[in-house]
Amino acid sequence: MKKLTLFTVLVFSQLALRAQQNTLNLMPAPKSIVTADAKFRLTNKFAVFVKGPKDDTMLYKAVNRACQVLNRKTGLAFGLKYISPADTLTGAQMQVAEQAKAKPAIGLDESYELKVNENSIVLSAANTIGVLHGLQTLVQLVGLDDKGYYLHVVAIDDSPRFKWRGLMIDAARHFVSFEEIEHNIDAMAAVKLNVLHWHLTDDEGFRVESKIFPLLQEKGSNGDYYTQAQIKEIVAYARDRGIIVVPEFDMPGHSQSWFAGYPELASLPGPYHPGLRGQWQQEHPDPNAPKGGSIADIIANMVAPTFDPTNEKLYVFLDKFIGEMTNLFPSGYMHIGADENNGMAWKKNPAIVAWMKDHQIASTDELQRYYVDRVYAILKKHQRKLIGWEEIFNEKLPKDAIVHKWIPESNGMIKSYGKTSDFTSHGNPVLISVGFYTDVFMPAYIHYQNQVLQGLNDPQVLGGEAAQWTELADNENIDGRIWPRTAAIAERLWSPESVNDIEDMYRRLFVFNHQLDEQGFPHIANYERALRRLSNGGPIETIKTLTDVLSPVRGYKKLIGNMMKAPQASYQTTPLTAVSDIIPVESEMKRKFRALVKLYLEKHDKDAENAIRTYLMVWQQNDTQIEPLFAGNKRLSEIQDHSKNLASAAAIGLDALERADKGINDAAWVQKSSAQLDTYAKPHYETEIAVIPEIAELVIGHVVAEPESYPQF
Amino acid sequence: MKKLTLFTVLVFSQLALRAQQNTLNLMPAPKSIVTADAKFRLTNKFAVFVKGPKDDTMLYKAVNRACQVLNRKTGLAFGLKYISPADTLTGAQMQVAEQAKAKPAIGLDESYELKVNENSIVLSAANTIGVLHGLQTLVQLVGLDDKGYYLHVVAIDDSPRFKWRGLMIDAARHFVSFEEIEHNIDAMAAVKLNVLHWHLTDDEGFRVESKIFPLLQEKGSNGDYYTQAQIKEIVAYARDRGIIVVPEFDMPGHSQSWFAGYPELASLPGPYHPGLRGQWQQEHPDPNAPKGGSIADIIANMVAPTFDPTNEKLYVFLDKFIGEMTNLFPSGYMHIGADENNGMAWKKNPAIVAWMKDHQIASTDELQRYYVDRVYAILKKHQRKLIGWEEIFNEKLPKDAIVHKWIPESNGMIKSYGKTSDFTSHGNPVLISVGFYTDVFMPAYIHYQNQVLQGLNDPQVLGGEAAQWTELADNENIDGRIWPRTAAIAERLWSPESVNDIEDMYRRLFVFNHQLDEQGFPHIANYERALRRLSNGGPIETIKTLTDVLSPVRGYKKLIGNMMKAPQASYQTTPLTAVSDIIPVESEMKRKFRALVKLYLEKHDKDAENAIRTYLMVWQQNDTQIEPLFAGNKRLSEIQDHSKNLASAAAIGLDALERADKGINDAAWVQKSSAQLDTYAKPHYETEIAVIPEIAELVIGHVVAEPESYPQF
Repeated sequence: MKKLTLFTVLVFSQLALRAQQNTLNLMPAPKSIVTADAKFRLTNKFAVFVKGPKDDTMLYKAVNRACQVLNRKTGLAFGLKYISPADTLTGAQMQVAEQAKAKPAIGLDESYELKVNENSIVLSAANTIGVLHGLQTLVQLVGLDDKGYYLHVVAIDDSPRFKWRGLMIDAARHFVSFEEIEHNIDAMAAVKLNVLHWHLTDDEGFRVESKIFPLLQEKGSNGDYYTQAQIKEIVAYARDRGIIVVPEFDMPGHSQSWFAGYPELASLPGPYHPGLRGQWQQEHPDPNAPKGGSIADIIANMVAPTFDPTNEKLYVFLDKFIGEMTNLFPSGYMHIGADENNGMAWKKNPAIVAWMKDHQIASTDELQRYYVDRVYAILKKHQRKLIGWEEIFNEKLPKDAIVHKWIPESNGMIKSYGKTSDFTSHGNPVLISVGFYTDVFMPAYIHYQNQVLQGLNDPQVLGGEAAQWTELADNENIDGRIWPRTAAIAERLWSPESVNDIEDMYRRLFVFNHQLDEQGFPHIANYERALRRLSNGGPIETIKTLTDVLSPVRGYKKLIGNMMKAPQASYQTTPLTAVSDIIPVESEMKRKFRALVKLYLEKHDKDAENAIRTYLMVWQQNDTQIEPLFAGNKRLSEIQDHSKNLASAAAIGLDALERADKGINDAAWVQKSSAQLDTYAKPHYETEIAVIPEIAELVIGHVVAEPESYPQF
Repeated sequence: MKKLTLFTVLVFSQLALRAQQNTLNLMPAPKSIVTADAKFRLTNKFAVFVKGPKDDTMLYKAVNRACQVLNRKTGLAFGLKYISPADTLTGAQMQVAEQAKAKPAIGLDESYELKVNENSIVLSAANTIGVLHGLQTLVQLVGLDDKGYYLHVVAIDDSPRFKWRGLMIDAARHFVSFEEIEHNIDAMAAVKLNVLHWHLTDDEGFRVESKIFPLLQEKGSNGDYYTQAQIKEIVAYARDRGIIVVPEFDMPGHSQSWFAGYPELASLPGPYHPGLRGQWQQEHPDPNAPKGGSIADIIANMVAPTFDPTNEKLYVFLDKFIGEMTNLFPSGYMHIGADENNGMAWKKNPAIVAWMKDHQIASTDELQRYYVDRVYAILKKHQRKLIGWEEIFNEKLPKDAIVHKWIPESNGMIKSYGKTSDFTSHGNPVLISVGFYTDVFMPAYIHYQNQVLQGLNDPQVLGGEAAQWTELADNENIDGRIWPRTAAIAERLWSPESVNDIEDMYRRLFVFNHQLDEQGFPHIANYERALRRLSNGGPIETIKTLTDVLSPVRGYKKLIGNMMKAPQASYQTTPLTAVSDIIPVESEMKRKFRALVKLYLEKHDKDAENAIRTYLMVWQQNDTQIEPLFAGNKRLSEIQDHSKNLASAAAIGLDALERADKGINDAAWVQKSSAQLDTYAKPHYETEIAVIPEIAELVIGHVVAEPESYPQF
């Protein structure tokens, strides 16, 4: 057997990748596409003529950006100057035509047509937003073959399935920098998402500057907040890329950081400071409170800082604050959170209890309803549509309030407030984030198959949002938490429901992943930087060989585990630099290896078998190479067990290949080896070896379907 | 011979690196340091108590930043909350004490003392700036051994040699984003630089928002400029890190972009638009103008857009503009450029010639003098000290104008306006950038040995500045153009002149380089991303093995070569994604290899010989591995010749080792092999193989001193 190196396999993958680039790598897949066996060749003569309103600066900026992406990708040096409305290059190879100027908005005509012929390209759309989408498709069409860079000849007719396609970023628990938000907007635009839902306030931080109430950010943020100038910049940056920004101010719970500066708004006396939800309770111990219990009990009994809805001054405050924010966020929507208020802070205040009695409000749920009604009226005055998490839903909820579905049915921890159909049949528009939580460490295919959206054609369902909470994500690792998996969610929201081939999705997902990287998105760079930090500036090759096949444990295990172990320790003061924090949520190597294993087991493909063997040999040999790096390096040593286990698992895999080649059928060996592999599958320090299932498939000799779901808790 | 892999060598280097970390890696080296053979152990109990003015927010922010750097680097999870003036941790392991609050300013007491004992750390300084410097030293002291992370026990007493230690960034030729400027400020602070000289306007772009004259940025920038809000943020960001920001508005030449919006300020009629210097001349051809000639001739004869100094309205305009800018840049300095005005635009305008006659101004040099005097008066009114490039110097120049020395003596291209001593003896303060131009692709040791600073103790010399012009640098590659070499310049400006060991400088430089990377500086990440782009998303290992030992050609060869070849082609529309653009200016691998070759040839070190052999074998084998990636990839193919040549050169090196081992002395072989290596040393596509001199040393059997200089042109 020829001894291959990992590089050889990677070149093999690279050539395979190149072969794939002879097919189309569009993500999200368009509504309709007709291809021909011909290519448009990119040369340094490439030029673009724009036909559209001369004052559509968004259009010209977008065309210039796309040209520069092509220019940098291909290195062809088009020699294009900045394309402006004064240009008269009517004979240019590419024509961009739009009928009307438009700013991003929900429900706009987002369609476009893109026709690539051998000698010309025509992109046409009803408005600016359609052009923007078409330019993203154009960039994804570029391929490289032995003759150079080209675009496939295609005719694409495209428009989205849902009109609201969002990404929620929690900038409160860990602050997410201005530049990271911009990076995410770029990535969103690349997969045709159109709503950035920005979770700006929570217990842990108040992240937006108020000039009317400056103590909000001064006392509530430890200095990490967005200035109004920055907010305006982000909103304009997003608008230029076809994206509206919807701010979320989470109230009446999740509001501890507001009270650091304005304790008079709270249900219970302070002092307050930004931090974990449970903090106030720890600092104000109640000897009569129930102790310990399950996570569900702790959540149910926690006295978490909450607005006092009986205080008329609160509504005066909110009217002014919301008025101020309306000037920063021109989209017609505002998200008021309203989630996870268990009413405990209200029950503990005798004045609130008395007020409820006076006003014949029977329960804290009813009191929350009263509060939401009051806020609804304030938003109405400021011409903003109210969005709230599903806790806002009740029979009297105004029908133009948008209900944001997030709680999975029968999850064993939190009760749902209704199914999607309960909300729509009441007449409320609905957004879906259930099944799209990217912080739960699920593989992309789980989100991709989101059952809540299956067969859903109700126009009351506006669409959905990926949601990234940031207990375990910070400025350095958040990119790899959100992306590339969010591209699979974007496809689910954009493409026809019939687009559902998981293998093809993964193939395109990782091509897209490299496109993101190429255009400056920092996720791969940050992962490798974090490895260099782990190795203290030394080489990372062998470390990466191991970490490339690790995944963080699925579900909220790390978060909840840490909370139970050391409730005092804050995820805000623990650096997110452990292996479980820095590795991609989904192992690309695992998907590649899985595809090879499938090819080998189902088609008896010899090349696949050789490549599998090389992977296994590299993994087997890696442990001895990595060994010298562990000494003294406590954090790196967290993967020492995995290193040994991967080597042993690889040895079993090699054995399996050899037995298969020799036609040996030994049930006892299969049983013993499978049991052995089970022990290697166990997590260590919140990571697990992602390729154990595939090695197990080699042992049993056939492919096993992947789980349809994993437990969240 | 045991067959080693590149990884083994890298681990060897890593272990060597770790060994080095038992010595000190401070950069710049402090004035005085006393070490002891003992260590302070970092644990999760680490905490800091700050003694200083409660209202010194800069101080608290800096301490928190440093703690988070340590926390992330070590992964120890100190559990530190945000350190605030309210804290009373008087028993904390580390104490930070300052006597007075200070903002950055030139001439401030910047000294600090840092005492690390086995159980305590004390950092004390006269003011905030000293504390900031001390915190940077603290972070650099962290090392890792088999027991974990530690700080060496030391007593450091430190203060700078020069009071002005700057970095000039040209944000005009290529726009440099807000975030890149912040990254550079972080890097500057890490090596105790204290002035960001921001070249904001030039022919190619007007990069700052004026609210009084909005056409400056609207017509002069293609949309790439800093808003006033961003400028304020940058200035505050720099201030928090001990750095003042000095803006440069380059006038009366280098001013084409101003005229796009305000053509009435120019000496000759428009229209104008931002772009290359020679553009106006191309668009307004003069049949009588001299054609062609050498670069020097072209420069001497170019009619470049220039302010009309005879227009009184110009001074009204400048008074308003400078007044507006003064509000954005609170430092007491303003740089007015005033370089490279050959007077041709004035000579071509009969009205200006007539005006000169009327006012008895005999030459365009005198007219420029008149202009500088007028601008000096405006700056004086706005309480700003004038800085200009050395062209401002003349016998009547006011003595408080600062002369910025940039032209090397007898460079064969441009005449110098005087030596440093000419300027100081006239009474003018001087800044030195000659010898510190980082855009000339020189190795760090050349800058480090800058002869202009040798023996210089004149207090009239304020200090100096690294200078990065951006014809060939853009937002993606500028970091690797400026850093890490600027750290060597920073050391020259901060440390005592006696610190001048080149080998030790390089050792520390690359440790610092990894520190930059670890703290989020993007240069290594951008290099590797650019390689991934070159390889079209495929594996980069073998490409990197080659590019890691390449360097861009020294001097302005690429820039001038391109200009002569295709004067129409703009460096603004050519993507800087070629190998010559993306590789580090200085090969770390070359310095490592050189150190090994020295050890082997001078000390006959056997380990070094083995490591050299491994490097050579890897280089020899790399060509066949990289070969499959070239097909169709035109840009990658630019290094195909180098790939073959490196393999052949490595074979010669291996032959040399074997002949030395066997004691073979063959003058003919030496001569033939040396001649062969000379051919491999030739540049291809503006890069060259950096390790040819070391392989040649193996052939001749002894180390050769490196050149003291390289030609700039």
